[in-house]
This record gives sequence, C-alpha cells and structure tokens, in this order.
Amino acid sequence: MEANSKNLQLGQNVVIEEGVTIGENVSIGHNTVILSGTEIGDNVIIGCNCVLGVKPGGNKRMRRDDYTATKLIIGDGTKIGNLVSIYSGTSIGEHCFVGDHASIRENVTIGNETVVGRAAIVELNTKIGSNVTIQTLVYVTGDTIVEDNVFFGPCVSMSNDKYMGLQEYELKGPHFKRNVKVGNNAPFLPNVTIGEDAVVGAGSVVTKDVNAGDTVVGVPAKKMK
Amino acid sequence: MEANSKNLQLGQNVVIEEGVTIGENVSIGHNTVILSGTEIGDNVIIGCNCVLGVKPGGNKRMRRDDYTATKLIIGDGTKIGNLVSIYSGTSIGEHCFVGDHASIRENVTIGNETVVGRAAIVELNTKIGSNVTIQTLVYVTGDTIVEDNVFFGPCVSMSNDKYMGLQEYELKGPHFKRNVKVGNNAPFLPNVTIGEDAVVGAGSVVTKDVNAGDTVVGVPAKKMK
Amino acid sequence: MEANSKNLQLGQNVVIEEGVTIGENVSIGHNTVILSGTEIGDNVIIGCNCVLGVKPGGNKRMRRDDYTATKLIIGDGTKIGNLVSIYSGTSIGEHCFVGDHASIRENVTIGNETVVGRAAIVELNTKIGSNVTIQTLVYVTGDTIVEDNVFFGPCVSMSNDKYMGLQEYELKGPHFKRNVKVGNNAPFLPNVTIGEDAVVGAGSVVTKDVNAGDTVVGVPAKKMK
Repeated sequence: MEANSKNLQLGQNVVIEEGVTIGENVSIGHNTVILSGTEIGDNVIIGCNCVLGVKPGGNKRMRRDDYTATKLIIGDGTKIGNLVSIYSGTSIGEHCFVGDHASIRENVTIGNETVVGRAAIVELNTKIGSNVTIQTLVYVTGDTIVEDNVFFGPCVSMSNDKYMGLQEYELKGPHFKRNVKVGNNAPFLPNVTIGEDAVVGAGSVVTKDVNAGDTVVGVPAKKMK
Repeated sequence: MEANSKNLQLGQNVVIEEGVTIGENVSIGHNTVILSGTEIGDNVIIGCNCVLGVKPGGNKRMRRDDYTATKLIIGDGTKIGNLVSIYSGTSIGEHCFVGDHASIRENVTIGNETVVGRAAIVELNTKIGSNVTIQTLVYVTGDTIVEDNVFFGPCVSMSNDKYMGLQEYELKGPHFKRNVKVGNNAPFLPNVTIGEDAVVGAGSVVTKDVNAGDTVVGVPAKKMK
Repeated sequence: MEANSKNLQLGQNVVIEEGVTIGENVSIGHNTVILSGTEIGDNVIIGCNCVLGVKPGGNKRMRRDDYTATKLIIGDGTKIGNLVSIYSGTSIGEHCFVGDHASIRENVTIGNETVVGRAAIVELNTKIGSNVTIQTLVYVTGDTIVEDNVFFGPCVSMSNDKYMGLQEYELKGPHFKRNVKVGNNAPFLPNVTIGEDAVVGAGSVVTKDVNAGDTVVGVPAKKMK
C-alpha cells in the first residue's frame, strides 16, 4: 500500500496485498480483500467482505481471451457496497455506485456517476458509459456496449451467444445507444442494436434491432402504435 | 456487546462493533460482521461471512429518503444463512429464515416465521407479513406490501417505477393481499393489487389488478375460465 | 487439516475447522471458511470469502429431508471462485469450475469438467452430469436431473412445485437428457422431460415434455417447423 493513503479508515481483518495503491480519505470495511494491482482513488468508500482485483480464471471448457491487463482502477468518490467482487483489467469511473453482492468482470470500462445495482452482474469485455442506471439483478452479458444515460429496470438480462455453444461464433452482446430506457425483466437476444432514445416495455423480449425513438413492447417486442 | 449475551458461540474473525446487543444462546459464524445498532434476540443463529446492520448509502443520482432509523432488529429464534447482507432501519420477526446470499434493505419490516429465500432481494420501504414464503432469487421491489401467508415461487420479480426514471412519480410496488400464491418467474408491473387468495401462474406477466380468488395466467395475465 | 496437504497456499484469515482433509498443491483465498467434513482433492483452487461445507438448516415451515450425509467432496483440479457457498452432503467432480457468488446445496452430485456459472444456484437433491455448462444466474431447482453435455444459457430457471405449496405433492424438477441446449431466460415448469439433443429457444416457457431432437420456441414453447 502506497504512502499517500492519508486518512485511511481500515476495518478489522482487512487484507491488502502488495502492489495496491490507495488515495486520500478512503474507507475500507471489515473483512474486505484488496488483491494486488488494485488502484483506489481519493474519497472511495468500500463496504465489508468484498473481493477486489480478482484475476480471471476458468476451466479448460471456458473461454480464455488473450488478456494482459492486470489492474483494477476505481475512480475518485466511487462507493462500493458489501460482498462485491470486481476483477482486475477493469476501470470504474468517478462517483459511481456499485451495490451489494454485485459482480463486475475483467476488461470492463465504466464511465462516471453510473450505478451498478444490487446483485447486478457485468460480464467481460463490456463498455458502459456515464450516468447509466443498472438496477438490481440486471445481467449485462459479455461484449456489450451501453452508452451514456441508459436506464435498465430490475432483472433485465441479455445474451451474447446465438448458437448456445453449438458452433463457432463471434460472441456479441447488444448495443444500447444513448438514452435508451428498458423496463424490468426484458431479455435481449444477441447482437441487437437499440437506437437512441428508444423505450423497451417491461417483460418484452427483444429479438431484433429497435429504431431510434421507438417504443417496443410484447413477446417478441413490436413497435407500439 | 451487552453483558446479557449468555452462551454466545462466536466463530473466528467475527467483527462486532460497539453498540450491538445480543440475546442468549446466539451463534455467529466465522468472518461475520455485525455493525453498530444491531439488536439480536435470543436463540438466533447467524452463518458465516454476513454483513448485518449496513447503513444506507448511494451516489447523487440515487434516491435518498429522509431516514433516521438506525437499528437492525432480529427477532428470537430467527436463522440467517451465509454471505447475507441486511440493512439497519429494518426489523425481522421471530423464527424467520433468511437464505444464503440474500439481501434485505433499510426500512423493511418482516413478520414471524417468514422465509426469505436464497439470493432473494428485498428492497427498501417494504412491509412483509408473517408466514410468507419468498423462494430463491425472488426480487421484492421497494414500496411493496406483502400480507400474511403469501407464497412466491423462485425468480418472481416486480417493479415500482412506471416511468423508468423518465418523469416524477411516486414509486409504488405491488400489493399482495393475504394468501396470494405466485408461480415461478412471474413479473409484476408497478402499483398492481393482487386480491386475497388469488393465484398467479408461473411465467405470467401481471400488468393490472387481480380480483380476490381469481386465477390468472399468460402474457399479459388473464383470468382462467 | 490432514498431514498430506503438501504445498498448501493459505490466504490470510482463512478458517479451517477440525475434520477437513486437503490434498496436494491446494490454494485457498483470504477470509475463506472451510467447515468440518470438507474433503478437498489435489490441485484445487478456492477464491476469497467463500463458505464451504455448510450444514443444512431451515425454519419449521421449510422442507426437511432425512439427511445424514455430512461431507462435502471437491474433486482434483476443480476451481471455485469468490464469495461462493457450498453445502455438505454434496460431491463435485474433477476439473469443474464454480463461479463467484454461486451457491450449491446439499445432496447434489456434479460430474467432471462441469461449469456452474457466476451467481448460479443449484438446489438440493439434484444430479448434474459431466461437461455441463450452467451459465450466469441460472437457477437449477431441487430434484432435477441434468445429464452430460447439457448447456444452459444465462438466467434459465425452473420450478419443482406444481401446486405452490397448496397441496401435498412429490417435488420433481425437470429432467434434461444428454446434449440438450437451452437459450437464455427460458423457464421450465415442474416435472417436464427434455429429450436428447433437443434445443429450447431463448425466452421460451417450457410447459410440457420436449421430444428428442426437437427445437421448441415461444410462450408456451412449441415445436419449430
């Protein structure tokens, strides 16, 4: 831990490995583990029983990307809840909020003031903008793009694998353009693009692209007239 | 920790902050954190790696209620699993069960003998009765009322925000009256009332009120004849 | 801990109860708890803040099986993520992978090289074969059979209780035969059998048996022509 960590508030049984840097006025809750390669900005608040800076792994049947990034960067003023896991190779902006039990994987970038809700999961190779709201239990699949100001209600989910492992396929998650709003429990199929300012109703199943400004509802989701 | 905690069984690395009271015959698992303001009744059993008594937080884009309650109360004979988070400002009755990985937020009241399942989430300002069964991975949104004897199958979910943050709106979750039974994976839209003894089929999407005693199924859910 | 644990890498604050056996070349992350009766094979890697070997419990309104097994067995070369809970009475094969935040209950058997995804949940009395892929947030209900080479996309779920606790009923989850592939977010009703090599489309609601080799889609799921 670097020498600049002024006013550090450390809980009990906190584990901080070698090669961690911590800014000023940081608070780390009891029993939290900060693994090597983690860089924590100023005024960051971290809850209890978290694991930050996890190195990617898997068994031989799992996807293995060429992957060299080894740092987890947490921006100034960001708050992280309790029982959270975040991987190395990921960068979280300033003044974000990550809810309890959330999990964020490797090679993810998140902008500023974005909320990752309670028990939400963000998979690898995903790019999330600023001022995004990801509510509780949302599943953001790998290889997804979420632009600024997007809103996901609780339990929204998505997939990036059209063939369910049946054949070779370049994995590709959905692309949500600026200001898209998605109601609760809407699932998205792989590789769809949702245009700017589009609205997706709760429970709709989105199987194809949605035009900018459209509102879609139903199973499968269709444009509302 | 108060002097009355007779026969306390404490795991290793347990953290108990100042201002915690613990009844008789209580067991607390390894690595669990009990934050200040927590009041634990008699014969309570708590698993490992839990965080109890969390103080509410958020970033500037998140809802902030006027909020003064600072206690978490856990009633006699209640059992709490492993890796659970529960907030302060919440009261859990007697002989309840809270499953592993579950999360219960602030300003929630739960009656007696109620089950909150594995990885289930209960959001803030929610009132849950007695003898309620909330199965695995259920999402109970904020501002929800669940009366006595209600049953939720696994993966039921709900929303309290009609406009997805698009406009000002008083958040309001569903109201489940006595004895309602809900099959697995049924999502509920905001502000619906489900009448006494009504039954909601698995996978049904509930978009409007359901009359007492009715059985509804489908997308959207309609009365079964 | 037995004397044969050669080359054991132990994190900080690890709790290992009496009556645990650990093979060679095992690594256990910080703040992880290994409860009594756990048997860990060679070359096993376990993350941080896990709880392994949990004894089943519940309140008086919950199912209580006659249950005597008290061991959790983890096979050679298996990797377990962070913040995972696994119960005693369960056996996991060799070279498996269990993702972060996953939970596996008692009386479960899992074959070799199977993946249990991030935050996935496997309920009690379930039998899972080898080379099975269970992706993120999948809910595998109790009393389920999953044969070899089955694939579940993210957020698939299922139920084993036809009557939602309304009447006496032998609980029975689905039976997935060899090589079944299931797209994301498909829910299954209790007691259905999915034949060998069948494919279930994303978001389909499976209410009855699916023949071997068929592809089904929709709500409710029907055979695709």
